[in-house]
Amino acid sequence: MALVVQKYGGTSVGDIEKISHVAKRVKRARDAGHDVVVVVSAMAGETNRLVDLCRQVMNQPDPREYDVVVSTGEQVVVGLLSMALKKAGQDAISLLGHQVAIHTDNSHTRARIARITDGKIRENLKAGRVVIVPGFQGVNEKGDITTLGRGGSDTSAVALAAALNADTCEIYTDVEGIFTTDPNVVPEAVKIPRISYDEMLEMASLGAKVLQIRSVEFAKKYDVPLHVRSTFSEAEGTWVTREDREMEKVVVSGVTFEKNEAKVSIRHVPDHPGIAARIFGAIADAGINVDMIIQNISHDGFTDMTFTVPKGDLEDALSIVRPIADEIGAKGILTDDKVAKVSIVGTGMRSHSGIASRMFQALADDGINIQMISTSEIKVSCVIESKYTELAVRVLHNAFDLGGDSV
Amino acid sequence: MALVVQKYGGTSVGDIEKISHVAKRVKRARDAGHDVVVVVSAMAGETNRLVDLCRQVMNQPDPREYDVVVSTGEQVVVGLLSMALKKAGQDAISLLGHQVAIHTDNSHTRARIARITDGKIRENLKAGRVVIVPGFQGVNEKGDITTLGRGGSDTSAVALAAALNADTCEIYTDVEGIFTTDPNVVPEAVKIPRISYDEMLEMASLGAKVLQIRSVEFAKKYDVPLHVRSTFSEAEGTWVTREDREMEKVVVSGVTFEKNEAKVSIRHVPDHPGIAARIFGAIADAGINVDMIIQNISHDGFTDMTFTVPKGDLEDALSIVRPIADEIGAKGILTDDKVAKVSIVGTGMRSHSGIASRMFQALADDGINIQMISTSEIKVSCVIESKYTELAVRVLHNAFDLGGDSV
Repeated sequence: MALVVQKYGGTSVGDIEKISHVAKRVKRARDAGHDVVVVVSAMAGETNRLVDLCRQVMNQPDPREYDVVVSTGEQVVVGLLSMALKKAGQDAISLLGHQVAIHTDNSHTRARIARITDGKIRENLKAGRVVIVPGFQGVNEKGDITTLGRGGSDTSAVALAAALNADTCEIYTDVEGIFTTDPNVVPEAVKIPRISYDEMLEMASLGAKVLQIRSVEFAKKYDVPLHVRSTFSEAEGTWVTREDREMEKVVVSGVTFEKNEAKVSIRHVPDHPGIAARIFGAIADAGINVDMIIQNISHDGFTDMTFTVPKGDLEDALSIVRPIADEIGAKGILTDDKVAKVSIVGTGMRSHSGIASRMFQALADDGINIQMISTSEIKVSCVIESKYTELAVRVLHNAFDLGGDSV
Repeated sequence: MALVVQKYGGTSVGDIEKISHVAKRVKRARDAGHDVVVVVSAMAGETNRLVDLCRQVMNQPDPREYDVVVSTGEQVVVGLLSMALKKAGQDAISLLGHQVAIHTDNSHTRARIARITDGKIRENLKAGRVVIVPGFQGVNEKGDITTLGRGGSDTSAVALAAALNADTCEIYTDVEGIFTTDPNVVPEAVKIPRISYDEMLEMASLGAKVLQIRSVEFAKKYDVPLHVRSTFSEAEGTWVTREDREMEKVVVSGVTFEKNEAKVSIRHVPDHPGIAARIFGAIADAGINVDMIIQNISHDGFTDMTFTVPKGDLEDALSIVRPIADEIGAKGILTDDKVAKVSIVGTGMRSHSGIASRMFQALADDGINIQMISTSEIKVSCVIESKYTELAVRVLHNAFDLGGDSV
């Protein structure tokens, strides 16, 4: 008998029929003898509806009141799922964020979980009930509702699993798990049975949008085994766990990509301390997410500084960078909004040499020019012309023998 | 400077535009120097949507979880209205039922308010904020959300006004106040400027569906002056207050009616103690609302027992009454589902004689036969054939000179 935290996303609870399906799934785990805590998202589309209502009132909604409004999406689902379980003959109880309680800091709309008191959950589990908790929300020390930011339900689930010292945290979604790359681009992409937290972090941040990145950080920190799987299938999904020996055999786990990037190069930047901080501090203050930053060695006291941002943020980024470039005496700014980033990820590359060069060669063999390169311990990323994205992904997937049969 | 509780119903907050309108209205009261506490309903239609979701899961939704789900309707509106006020330049804060706190008993879906702690509200009023509270909901001693039953927002508002010792409780709705009768039936019906709690109780229970009856009881008990008025007009509405001298001059304040009634007569019932309790206890246990009950003097130890119920409840009522009638040796049951009740209401009739007979004469003059009569201190009700309902209402409205110009 284990303690399992199950998290169901918005598409898994999108209507009453689906909620009943989830209830059956939860009951099966309970019937198998497990204690089950369920974390749910709002019904698909509901959070957007609520956010839209807020924006109709205020362009920049008041954060505290925004949280009061949008947290209702999950609240509705906990009540409905609890009823569906009771109807299926399984006792259940919903506990809201302030009842559990899930204590957060005071950063409305993007709060961080500080601590979770587990007495009320344990007491109800002991009484044989399934406990259902709304994802995405908590309560600050004033007793006000806070929300964790979009996708926060994954984080709620992992945090609960950590606090309860659960055996597993199952993340139910509408895909079968984490794939070696996007099956829409490479039909031969296969499900990865096991992946490390670090690999998942690189995959998540690079565009495999299955798991919220904060939840993976949380899972890594507290060593919570994650099982990402489909609500609509019995198949095992992908386990995201601490690195183990098995994983070391695999050199590259997956190929990820990010289209719709834009590249900004500031030319002939004086190479002295504080310049980079000045530029990227100003961009961060504007809430723009910089992805890659590349600075090569300098010549005669000057260097070029290049970075990428989401295409939609290019104009904003330029309006910030231009005056700074003038001020520091740079020789101009080059931009390109037709670039993409392709990356290979794998813990195995730490102990295997030649992985990066094999990547570069594979791209070159198909005439794809590499504009920028950036590497980490378990990842190599290349910026290329965006029209080659799909080709590059297929080429790399093939070069590292990731494929199975066509899915 | 006064302390005012304002309550806005579902049609008054039905969309963002209307919520902005309400915000302006609230701000005006604040600008006039008043402290303002606002109680809101869910957006029109939203509670029905949520109830429907619950019923899709369970025919008889689990009461605790039902409250978790349906209470979100009001929660959304408090957040949106608070934002709308801030946007209009007026500081505001929403406080949910468990934050205020509005303590109720444990009767989920039809909870009763036990007490209200006012510290948090007063503290925020003192800081210059408008305080916005969701109607219809509270919290039980376990910290679970409870709801007060449909229309409960009126009760929330009056209870808050009582707890805060407010100067007025304004009930904003989509009509201009309480009318002498339904203007759809009698175009000459006029707004009643002032009416007593008792009259309002008789009016409300008889079909003038503007105010929830429990809220009027509450207002009477704690002597809270109510002002029922339109959200969409500046005109004074109807004041519902303690009886005053002015009111005594008015003999009849209004004519009310209830169509869709059904009449059940149990014939030849043994006239001994406990029979009535037996019959109506069983009906009440089934949750059926009996309206009128008439029992005339007995003959030779037997009497007839007649009562009315909503037409839709007739079959259920009969299935309960039939076995009891057999058992006590009654001589059969007569039913009629084509009856209606018309009533005249007025505190003045206590000190004026001849009111009832004037009513009977007016009906007789137009050939309307009276099937049953029931009277209270400030009300006379007659059951008539339902097809005469509108005619009877017009005749009575005219007989007691209630009309103004056509509205």
